Amino acid sequence: MIIMKPAARPSEINAIIGKIKSAGLKADVSKGEGQTVIGIIGDESRIDFDMLRSMRGVETAKHIQAPYKLMTKEYLQEENIIIEANGARIGAEGITYIAGPCSIESYDQLARIAQQVKEAGAQVLRGGTFKPRTSVHSFQGLGELGLQHLQKVGRELGIATVTEVRSESHAELVAAYVDILQIGMRNMYNQDLLEAVARQNKPILFKRSHAAQIQEFLSFGQYIVAAGNRQIMLCERGILPLGGSFEPETRNTLDLSAVPVLAAKTPFPIIVDPSHATGRRDLILPMSMAAVASGARGLIIEVHDRPEEALSDGAQALMPAQLKGLIRRCDSISELLRSDSQNG
Amino acid sequence: MIIMKPAARPSEINAIIGKIKSAGLKADVSKGEGQTVIGIIGDESRIDFDMLRSMRGVETAKHIQAPYKLMTKEYLQEENIIIEANGARIGAEGITYIAGPCSIESYDQLARIAQQVKEAGAQVLRGGTFKPRTSVHSFQGLGELGLQHLQKVGRELGIATVTEVRSESHAELVAAYVDILQIGMRNMYNQDLLEAVARQNKPILFKRSHAAQIQEFLSFGQYIVAAGNRQIMLCERGILPLGGSFEPETRNTLDLSAVPVLAAKTPFPIIVDPSHATGRRDLILPMSMAAVASGARGLIIEVHDRPEEALSDGAQALMPAQLKGLIRRCDSISELLRSDSQNG
Amino acid sequence: MIIMKPAARPSEINAIIGKIKSAGLKADVSKGEGQTVIGIIGDESRIDFDMLRSMRGVETAKHIQAPYKLMTKEYLQEENIIIEANGARIGAEGITYIAGPCSIESYDQLARIAQQVKEAGAQVLRGGTFKPRTSVHSFQGLGELGLQHLQKVGRELGIATVTEVRSESHAELVAAYVDILQIGMRNMYNQDLLEAVARQNKPILFKRSHAAQIQEFLSFGQYIVAAGNRQIMLCERGILPLGGSFEPETRNTLDLSAVPVLAAKTPFPIIVDPSHATGRRDLILPMSMAAVASGARGLIIEVHDRPEEALSDGAQALMPAQLKGLIRRCDSISELLRSDSQNG
Amino acid sequence: MIIMKPAARPSEINAIIGKIKSAGLKADVSKGEGQTVIGIIGDESRIDFDMLRSMRGVETAKHIQAPYKLMTKEYLQEENIIIEANGARIGAEGITYIAGPCSIESYDQLARIAQQVKEAGAQVLRGGTFKPRTSVHSFQGLGELGLQHLQKVGRELGIATVTEVRSESHAELVAAYVDILQIGMRNMYNQDLLEAVARQNKPILFKRSHAAQIQEFLSFGQYIVAAGNRQIMLCERGILPLGGSFEPETRNTLDLSAVPVLAAKTPFPIIVDPSHATGRRDLILPMSMAAVASGARGLIIEVHDRPEEALSDGAQALMPAQLKGLIRRCDSISELLRSDSQNG
Repeated sequence: MIIMKPAARPSEINAIIGKIKSAGLKADVSKGEGQTVIGIIGDESRIDFDMLRSMRGVETAKHIQAPYKLMTKEYLQEENIIIEANGARIGAEGITYIAGPCSIESYDQLARIAQQVKEAGAQVLRGGTFKPRTSVHSFQGLGELGLQHLQKVGRELGIATVTEVRSESHAELVAAYVDILQIGMRNMYNQDLLEAVARQNKPILFKRSHAAQIQEFLSFGQYIVAAGNRQIMLCERGILPLGGSFEPETRNTLDLSAVPVLAAKTPFPIIVDPSHATGRRDLILPMSMAAVASGARGLIIEVHDRPEEALSDGAQALMPAQLKGLIRRCDSISELLRSDSQNG
Repeated sequence: MIIMKPAARPSEINAIIGKIKSAGLKADVSKGEGQTVIGIIGDESRIDFDMLRSMRGVETAKHIQAPYKLMTKEYLQEENIIIEANGARIGAEGITYIAGPCSIESYDQLARIAQQVKEAGAQVLRGGTFKPRTSVHSFQGLGELGLQHLQKVGRELGIATVTEVRSESHAELVAAYVDILQIGMRNMYNQDLLEAVARQNKPILFKRSHAAQIQEFLSFGQYIVAAGNRQIMLCERGILPLGGSFEPETRNTLDLSAVPVLAAKTPFPIIVDPSHATGRRDLILPMSMAAVASGARGLIIEVHDRPEEALSDGAQALMPAQLKGLIRRCDSISELLRSDSQNG
Repeated sequence: MIIMKPAARPSEINAIIGKIKSAGLKADVSKGEGQTVIGIIGDESRIDFDMLRSMRGVETAKHIQAPYKLMTKEYLQEENIIIEANGARIGAEGITYIAGPCSIESYDQLARIAQQVKEAGAQVLRGGTFKPRTSVHSFQGLGELGLQHLQKVGRELGIATVTEVRSESHAELVAAYVDILQIGMRNMYNQDLLEAVARQNKPILFKRSHAAQIQEFLSFGQYIVAAGNRQIMLCERGILPLGGSFEPETRNTLDLSAVPVLAAKTPFPIIVDPSHATGRRDLILPMSMAAVASGARGLIIEVHDRPEEALSDGAQALMPAQLKGLIRRCDSISELLRSDSQNG
Repeated sequence: MIIMKPAARPSEINAIIGKIKSAGLKADVSKGEGQTVIGIIGDESRIDFDMLRSMRGVETAKHIQAPYKLMTKEYLQEENIIIEANGARIGAEGITYIAGPCSIESYDQLARIAQQVKEAGAQVLRGGTFKPRTSVHSFQGLGELGLQHLQKVGRELGIATVTEVRSESHAELVAAYVDILQIGMRNMYNQDLLEAVARQNKPILFKRSHAAQIQEFLSFGQYIVAAGNRQIMLCERGILPLGGSFEPETRNTLDLSAVPVLAAKTPFPIIVDPSHATGRRDLILPMSMAAVASGARGLIIEVHDRPEEALSDGAQALMPAQLKGLIRRCDSISELLRSDSQNG
């Protein structure tokens, strides 16, 4: 919809109508007392709204259709997409728990923790191999060696695996070793990486940027669908906290409203990451239960059995016994929601 | 703790030590290789950190103690404060539901809705009388007439009542009619209002500003405690959403992590307002369940039986039947949490 | 403009049209392929958009007119309003400098600093009397005694004066002593205070909240105009910084784009407060020059001759000699802009 | 600095001291009345603060040193680094103007605009080739063909050239054609791209993310320096605006305070991009003048001679004649600052 300035001339109005028609769309013109408003009939995505805004006589031009059609239930013709990965069925009945260490540090460390998270009830094993790090001085991960450990442990235990693909140049390599490919929050806007990962034809755990509005998150998700891959899990992991001069209490703000908002629009399962959002071990249990109550279909949680020795993010890692208690409680809430919705 | 610049002179270090001593505190000086660090031993709140930062040779001065001592469990010597108001016991076992219309429009409208929210299970009746409004043109509330309706309906039904005190000059008036006094999010920083309301010696529903970090919220809460009133409910009602060029999905971002963070620090019951945070009727149920799962002790929810005729905020009001379903589900989650914590 | 859902029924569309007509406005209906769009012809402010959004069949309802008509050049029929206050002419040719201590601490302190800021070139003397403070423990100002000092010094030196009105109950008192009444950033949303101050019939320095979008700032400014007072200076003083886990570099983010945005819409002079926005003495000179280059008509700057002894905000106070250098440089930029615009 | 909980045990304190020593650093322990504080003497970057925070008995652990040592004047032993690129000397006397179209659309379009921006006084020609776009449907740039046009036009006119490297896989290709490599705001956190671009050994225009605090921006810049490249221009291009329910006035918030903050810490020239920050043609002139007044050494500005036909971002492009007026005014302000600093 284009709103013209009160003083817009007929020639300026006609120029807009011409632009709309040249994109193969129809224009609906309504002349009000003060202002002329021009509606677009047809697929809005075929026209550049920035260009419309720059034309003479235009006050503003607004989208009416949401700019993420490829991600919607209507376009995909699906109500709920279930992701299958080495035995895990994310988005099907019940909650999927994705757990493991922030970084893979050695075969022994991973095998030991993996055994414990599987016993606690997790269906997917996570572990960082190429780590995105703020500081050039921090531990950057074991790289391909880590991938080998992850594949070996996954096979030995019969558990699905996930790790982050940090760079386009790693996409094929990572896909050769693991079941689910993660796109981290710093890469949500990286369209070339999204396409490279999508082409691997494996399920994708797609994390929202800490700076992205929901519509931007979905808009970038379109790069994955457009590349032919619909095996997407959408992951809320916290957004920028309010600024200020004292230390904020949590690293980011977990935006749980995003869960029902996303679930209403898209057929993809929604995963929540309370570990990175809060950065605090004591907040993971309450925020996990809240995530399940808000409609999340999975949780991704950092677990370490010796957090004080962890090479990264030890402060937010749960102990395996804590994971077990968390899974019991979250399953109870999930069960309650399910029986409730069955009873109407 | 004060960190001196590497090039700080002995005279500058001595000036800092002098300032600390003149406030009746002790200084602990440690000279590192690069920098001298001066610790403060004693009550930090007795010294002005802005002044310390402005002194010559100082690189930075940081608080070690949190700047909201009066709000802490340690200071108040209480683990859980229970607020009693006309039969409601907020913070005791179970969840307290505060419900009613955004604005009181007439005696009939209020009486009709109040009857329905009470039957649905609410223990406190809310209704706006002096409305804070963004636009000078919007309906500003019935004022004292609304207070009279609220008192009358509250007495007839035997239900506790709450309304917002928008201005210092209304504090006494409002306190004469209602059981619980609300301080709205736009007034969180209004220290004179906080003091005026605190002096009425009634329970206070204190809402966090949409722009306040948790520590600011607690810091301003001190004005209430310092005025001699400890009957405080802390209310999370959404913070500023991420900015952007398209419409955000929700009015504000409900910050549920604030619930366990506040519950760990303070003895006051935590209330969540999903109506104002989301601004959308369809998000109120999932976010209410999530709030209870995160540890909230109460919910404040707008209800209207004819939302299309409401004079304010109709878009976010639940119908009474929806409130009933919400209460049933939230009670189930609360019950589950309680039985779980009793079983260890 | 109201956008109906694709599945909206004729009866739902008619209900919307009825609402618009019952507000005395006309509806313009255009039926597109997918969606019906209803335009409002007439004064949008006469209808409640929240209510429209809550009606059946409505997808969304958007404002086309900006919600701050009373603040616009068109409504006020003025291009530039000049504010006169005891010799100062804010918004006329040249830059107005408002300077003085954060808090008035004694007659001697104020008289000494006032003498120096006047000699440096300032036309208005500022000084806090009732201080809004984050901490209940901080120095809260001298109150009425401070007002007496401010009036006395202003008369002795023949300089206009300004101080903040923190509370409705002080409005008349403050107006009895000073020339310009300041509404602080924490009170921008306080409509009762705005009205109480506006009624004093004196010029008002109106500060933007650190959390307010520009349109909200202007929308609340309408309370002043609606109360019959058009002697308004709009003051940008910094908005919330980006959040994070390390200390941000500046207290707030000075939003200088607000200066030309406000100047294009409203006839009121725009003032910038670099002291509170940055909180750092070394940033005040560059940000003052930038403010003038962006079109500001005045600056408000904290000055103290003994900042290490200041009872508040010493870290950001300039020394009088620094103010003098700042005024010389800012006047040069202002002169350059003026000669440039005269030469075309 | 590590602050222990009041109840920390001696064994817990000793564990911390052990960690610090095992990193080759010294620990300075001061036992206060309430709390023990442990300082770190030596290079803080050698220890993981997240791990410290996770250890038993620790209340919090804070950095004292800024986490971007490699970017500082002290480390680089330079006060001002001047970047040389095909005749342009960014950071030397005067302002560098980088101008050109958002997207290169054809050889003719680029040659025509380039001629005009050179005549207006620009020293560097910009033009997008591989465009980062929010929507999968938008024009994505001409790719290598665009690079060929850019190189040809740059040689014909004898003007330096810059374009964005959107993906690691393009780094070598782009470096073969242009003089300056841009890292866009969406890639600020992309450490693999930073390293790939740094290795091309050409000057880099490094843009701050719209979500990055200044310290994060500098922290990621370290990846460039660590890869052996010190030819860096730091570019402020706007940060996330305040959220809200109405349209914000500007696309992003231009953070001009970042200019003097960065200039105080690092020796690199600071560039400002008013086009992307504001997204509005009418704000570019005032914000450019403000940027120069705040200390910026260069401006990057989108120019198009037929903005209504531009394939991207036409709404914010200046006409060549407007660029000429902007350069004249900004040069005047720069000249005034320079003569002023020479006169003391």
